[in-house]
Amino acid sequence: MSTTQTFTVTGMTCGHCVASVTEEVQEIAGVENVAVDLPTGAVTITSAAPLDASAVQAAVEEAGYQLA
Amino acid sequence: MSTTQTFTVTGMTCGHCVASVTEEVQEIAGVENVAVDLPTGAVTITSAAPLDASAVQAAVEEAGYQLA
Repeated sequence: MSTTQTFTVTGMTCGHCVASVTEEVQEIAGVENVAVDLPTGAVTITSAAPLDASAVQAAVEEAGYQLA
Repeated sequence: MSTTQTFTVTGMTCGHCVASVTEEVQEIAGVENVAVDLPTGAVTITSAAPLDASAVQAAVEEAGYQLA
């Protein structure tokens, strides 16, 4: 069964930002789908098992952004 | 002798946007340097000979933005 978690990312301003965050989060082991809502910064991640928030934070920071 | 021209581009919101515009403008024949100021949208282009505004407009639109 898959798990869905939503995080809020700050600082994304355009589709390029969305693509950067999506790309980094998709690289986390077990991630099946990433959906980003630019206006709100909501990043919804579907994964095989619940993700550690620290792994998500690291991916978001690698892309150049921050968790709220 | 090189020529410097400045155009204003609208819609750029982040460094990725700057990179996209810079990349497309650099592909115009004769362009030697491209400098983008994100807050103002000013794109300053140094080239071997004056560029046609239409060439710059085409490059900017290829990147997904518009001249002011």
